[in-house]
Amino acid sequence: MRQFGEIEGCVAGTEFSSRAELSASGIHRPTQAGISGSETEGADSIVVSGGYEDDEDYGDYLIYGGQAGFDPNTRQQNDDAELNRGNLALVVSYNKGLPVRVSRGLGSKQHTYRYDGLYLVERWWVDRGKSGYRIYRFALRKIDDKPISTPAGELPLPPASDPERDRIQSYTTHIVRDTLAAEAVKEAHQHACQTCSTRIERPGGAYAQAAHIRPLGRPHNGPDAADNILCLCPNCYALFDGWAFAIEDDGNLIGALHGCLHEVENHTVNREHLAYHRRLYEEANIGSGENPHASRQDTPHRQ
Amino acid sequence: MRQFGEIEGCVAGTEFSSRAELSASGIHRPTQAGISGSETEGADSIVVSGGYEDDEDYGDYLIYGGQAGFDPNTRQQNDDAELNRGNLALVVSYNKGLPVRVSRGLGSKQHTYRYDGLYLVERWWVDRGKSGYRIYRFALRKIDDKPISTPAGELPLPPASDPERDRIQSYTTHIVRDTLAAEAVKEAHQHACQTCSTRIERPGGAYAQAAHIRPLGRPHNGPDAADNILCLCPNCYALFDGWAFAIEDDGNLIGALHGCLHEVENHTVNREHLAYHRRLYEEANIGSGENPHASRQDTPHRQ
Repeated sequence: MRQFGEIEGCVAGTEFSSRAELSASGIHRPTQAGISGSETEGADSIVVSGGYEDDEDYGDYLIYGGQAGFDPNTRQQNDDAELNRGNLALVVSYNKGLPVRVSRGLGSKQHTYRYDGLYLVERWWVDRGKSGYRIYRFALRKIDDKPISTPAGELPLPPASDPERDRIQSYTTHIVRDTLAAEAVKEAHQHACQTCSTRIERPGGAYAQAAHIRPLGRPHNGPDAADNILCLCPNCYALFDGWAFAIEDDGNLIGALHGCLHEVENHTVNREHLAYHRRLYEEANIGSGENPHASRQDTPHRQ
Repeated sequence: MRQFGEIEGCVAGTEFSSRAELSASGIHRPTQAGISGSETEGADSIVVSGGYEDDEDYGDYLIYGGQAGFDPNTRQQNDDAELNRGNLALVVSYNKGLPVRVSRGLGSKQHTYRYDGLYLVERWWVDRGKSGYRIYRFALRKIDDKPISTPAGELPLPPASDPERDRIQSYTTHIVRDTLAAEAVKEAHQHACQTCSTRIERPGGAYAQAAHIRPLGRPHNGPDAADNILCLCPNCYALFDGWAFAIEDDGNLIGALHGCLHEVENHTVNREHLAYHRRLYEEANIGSGENPHASRQDTPHRQ
């Protein structure tokens, strides 16, 4: 099974004297390819060579040029790239929110590679590479808080973000960290929302969010188990998590005029957890004045 | 105007010898109230006294008991709390994703307060306090990466998160940091989605996401200006950002069977930015095989 995230016993900053050594460590298995991954599972690791003309390296922010196009006749990399192989693997990592290990070839030390930690694919797009052909590009951002001393090749570090970006007012509150159990629940429902059936389809695959019914962490201490997880579209996630609706044991929704809980044979929801969430929902909706039951997409509002 | 986020010239870790000094610094203006904020703008700051029976302090994770109920007859805090005043301000901060400054009373030094940085309201719920009355509780998590030396009162630091939570598989990729321009756009549309009209209503207010049409940051360098921002529901945000649909100059949507761009008098969208996003959308959908136009909620999928 492909391993995403940290490899036990290998911390960011570890250096390797060859691709073979890097491969043996488990950080990046392929000894030649820059992208390690599959079209269905996603990409678990990339190597930034430092000399690739379509990369831009700012240390904790990286613009990575994906797999180049391959002309099947001439067997040369002189065609437009397509959304397949390594490129699709990185798009799947974007859709699933999977962490990608990043290793850099160190320009100052020949054949030396350094593992630099976990990054997220923040965005992808298609561009013309310096060769003139279509190329997939991926913006990756480091997700742990350990800074990188220097990027590959001791490049100077220009500011990665737009200065305007620094006038931050607010943040998305729902930073979801999914576990294997959450991924399994999404797969069981093919990423369709369990309460409204919406399926968010994007190039490269579908997108859903996993909601823990009885919340994780103190003081609720809900378990990270499939029977405590719902596969929801982002809208229903925001509503369910923000006490705008709850679910009865029979699957009917409270606080919403339509929709009901969809279950499948290989994923049943624990009614005790539904009851726990329902109690919190009811308490949250007492005392909230004129709007005891928040509406759930029932009153489309037009300007 | 109420200031959210950092106060210039005051770094986390700064100590103050009284509430008056803390107030004068701008970190926490009220000299008595624990919550600084308003019911419409949200809460910008809280003070954790350290002695409050309904608080649980884990340093970078904090469970904060909101404003207690106030009996108007006896003028004593011996009634159920309601979703108003400071409690509503903190719920609004949750809905808007606003950062909250946290200061702690230091148990070891009488009348000393320390500013400990920015936190986000990760969740709120209603509980019975130790007094037996309804109390609003808020889970806040530190959002910068500077660790806190010791929590108030030199309490030992138990692990704040569930150990199961550590088996993280994936992360939400869209960590949105909103600016004042983004908040203004959401207000202009009363948090209704500009492409599908959905309005996510939750106790305490509505929720929307701000999408930059021409993306921020390298290499796109879109401006953080209202005419480059759309107010979208979370579903349309995930689709727009993931190249599942684009918008024509006349407001029609490409890649979606229904919906069109809604504009209001005080918020017009720059057509050049729409064209930039459209080019990226078109490039992203060439070469993605059998599914050139990803569907947008058009094919509800049922198990």
